[in-house]
Amino acid sequence: MYDVTKIRSDFPILAREVNGKPLVYLDNGASAQKPQVVIDAVTQAYAMEYSNVHRGLHFLSNLATEKYEGVRGTIARFLNAGHEDEVVMNSGTTEGINTVAYGWAAPRLQAGDEIVLSVMEHHANIVPWHFLRERQGVVLKWVDTDATGHLDPQAVIDAIGPKTKLIAITQLSNVLGTKVDVKAICDGARAKGVPVLVDGSQGAVHMPVDVQDLGCDFYAITGHKLYGPSGSGAIWIRKERLDQMRPFMGGGDMIREVSKDTVTYADPPMKFEAGTPGIVQMIGLGVALEYLMELGMENVAAHEETLRDYARSRLDGLNWLQVQGTTPDKAAIFSFTLDGAGHAHDVSTILDKKGVAVRAGHHCAGPLMDHLGLTATCRASFGLYNTESEVDVLIDALELAHELFA
Amino acid sequence: MYDVTKIRSDFPILAREVNGKPLVYLDNGASAQKPQVVIDAVTQAYAMEYSNVHRGLHFLSNLATEKYEGVRGTIARFLNAGHEDEVVMNSGTTEGINTVAYGWAAPRLQAGDEIVLSVMEHHANIVPWHFLRERQGVVLKWVDTDATGHLDPQAVIDAIGPKTKLIAITQLSNVLGTKVDVKAICDGARAKGVPVLVDGSQGAVHMPVDVQDLGCDFYAITGHKLYGPSGSGAIWIRKERLDQMRPFMGGGDMIREVSKDTVTYADPPMKFEAGTPGIVQMIGLGVALEYLMELGMENVAAHEETLRDYARSRLDGLNWLQVQGTTPDKAAIFSFTLDGAGHAHDVSTILDKKGVAVRAGHHCAGPLMDHLGLTATCRASFGLYNTESEVDVLIDALELAHELFA
Repeated sequence: MYDVTKIRSDFPILAREVNGKPLVYLDNGASAQKPQVVIDAVTQAYAMEYSNVHRGLHFLSNLATEKYEGVRGTIARFLNAGHEDEVVMNSGTTEGINTVAYGWAAPRLQAGDEIVLSVMEHHANIVPWHFLRERQGVVLKWVDTDATGHLDPQAVIDAIGPKTKLIAITQLSNVLGTKVDVKAICDGARAKGVPVLVDGSQGAVHMPVDVQDLGCDFYAITGHKLYGPSGSGAIWIRKERLDQMRPFMGGGDMIREVSKDTVTYADPPMKFEAGTPGIVQMIGLGVALEYLMELGMENVAAHEETLRDYARSRLDGLNWLQVQGTTPDKAAIFSFTLDGAGHAHDVSTILDKKGVAVRAGHHCAGPLMDHLGLTATCRASFGLYNTESEVDVLIDALELAHELFA
Repeated sequence: MYDVTKIRSDFPILAREVNGKPLVYLDNGASAQKPQVVIDAVTQAYAMEYSNVHRGLHFLSNLATEKYEGVRGTIARFLNAGHEDEVVMNSGTTEGINTVAYGWAAPRLQAGDEIVLSVMEHHANIVPWHFLRERQGVVLKWVDTDATGHLDPQAVIDAIGPKTKLIAITQLSNVLGTKVDVKAICDGARAKGVPVLVDGSQGAVHMPVDVQDLGCDFYAITGHKLYGPSGSGAIWIRKERLDQMRPFMGGGDMIREVSKDTVTYADPPMKFEAGTPGIVQMIGLGVALEYLMELGMENVAAHEETLRDYARSRLDGLNWLQVQGTTPDKAAIFSFTLDGAGHAHDVSTILDKKGVAVRAGHHCAGPLMDHLGLTATCRASFGLYNTESEVDVLIDALELAHELFA
């Protein structure tokens, strides 16, 4: 039984007011709030159990190392990875995708080689590939969505040519809420020998993920969207690809031996974890993922589907508002524009006065905005603690905005 | 008046026991403990003030952005930077030095070009340069210390040849405690037109730093050693060098515009801060630096000099123990070996039973260990909250270890 009232009580910030109104936090696509168990884990780690990891043999160092390294197994369970050594812990998806761009793609791709992307990608899954275009002549090949925001997996597979070396694709659009059939893409790509990188920044937050079942090669997640601390994250990398990669960042912990003239590297995943890691935020992420697994990602998904259906029906009733992304099975992420509103930022400012936190802007998705012919939208993105009555507050606030701009 | 008893009460972990003994935490070189004000700031940020930064216009996003961006100015004050836009916020020194290696050096250095390093460098200030050696034929040129661990600044300047493009040097050895006359090196290097990167991971913790007075080009710090959260840090980069750099990681927030075919970048420092940053840990770092500035770094340095002198006199009394690094003005960092002890790890394990946390190993300083002819040492590294009576506990525990190994 998914008890949203009880769940809400786990998140202290949800009890606060902003601008004299109860907070209605609908900016989960940008970052999610943290349950008390995560905050407590962070506090406990700093107040009573803190030390650097890996390099020590004293009590606190062993304790911190055990807690920190335990998170690798938690992430592996969360993603159903075959082995926890395929989990590289990092600061989030941006670092994860850059690790692949610098460590796998840069030394491998030649001028004229292609990377296939969808038009819905977030800048985190675009700019690292633009670097390769700028620096070594790699070609970016884009696959558009249809008018509903649907991405045909066959169109992605058909975009693969003899020069295609990688597909880099989101599992869930942060703007449209579109779910991408990543498994079908991976099936088709594998038949053509092309690896697939999946940006799971949003996908892993809203549905169960099984990287073995998906059949991808790289799957990146970001902790702060998963109800964990800022600056936490991971990328799952299939062993075969890990073995092809050169290190990304250099520093302590990722080496076997360093002398004046030579360097040898640690085995993966350590090879890709340079320097003192984000010890405490990773410990917090482990607790966040345990929290999610205890709720059950199927249950989270079911709750959010109910919210999506309710929000869609209410938003559909506003004939002066246009929602971008209308696929039936989309996530509870609604980007919209209002007739007559000068700018999405003005709308979000009015909503904020009513306590409703939404985001306004390009949502780090420049090519999609171009494709939609828009410069900005407002985005209400729901999370596991949101409720139908919060949808009602959003609608009331939108009606006020409409009146002001009409 | 520097009241170490009061200061100790600011750090909750110092009140705990390990192995039934009061914790004597002498592993500050690896990572420092956190004062309650830092822990409280982290808790408050997650529990009541959390949101993603920069991209929103709602109340919590503005609040988080204001707090996060305020830290840039705090770091600038801490380092006496000329302008806060020269401060790139990141996850620590490893990321900072890799940013320079990938963003400044890699596109600029040719095969045969040289980087001058001291033999005391930490792997974080070695491996990124080994990458350039492996990948593009850059030559690493090493300057040794004398038998006391002193580094002659003139020897570094004399190592500059017509092909030298960078000096990368620590301000304070994490193994020997040696303080390097970085200012003299910068003076000499500037006269020859060679930029200087300073690894301030240890230096900024133990003495006042003024990057303008030093005259360096890059100065990297790491927050977790500065009594701040894990996963926090910054690198100060002189504007002239910032303007020469290409971006390191690609993603959100570091761009101006992204389309299918083009990308343009934000101005520094944003250009070098891709993706959602470590929001809360940076807020915590800001509080840690305010704490340090309130104590006064001159006062911290004076306290640690007293500790150093006392520890040195006590350790000098143990004729079965060899300290590495004997320069008179060294920091309170003591690496040592014991006659007859099989391995430094065994010694550290015995100390741990007495509650004394020291580190054992190569301290991420392979070339220095080769230079010293050692594979490992124990290291007792003092911080602003340590006391002379803790030195006594260390000495008692060492005497026990000596008895056991004799």
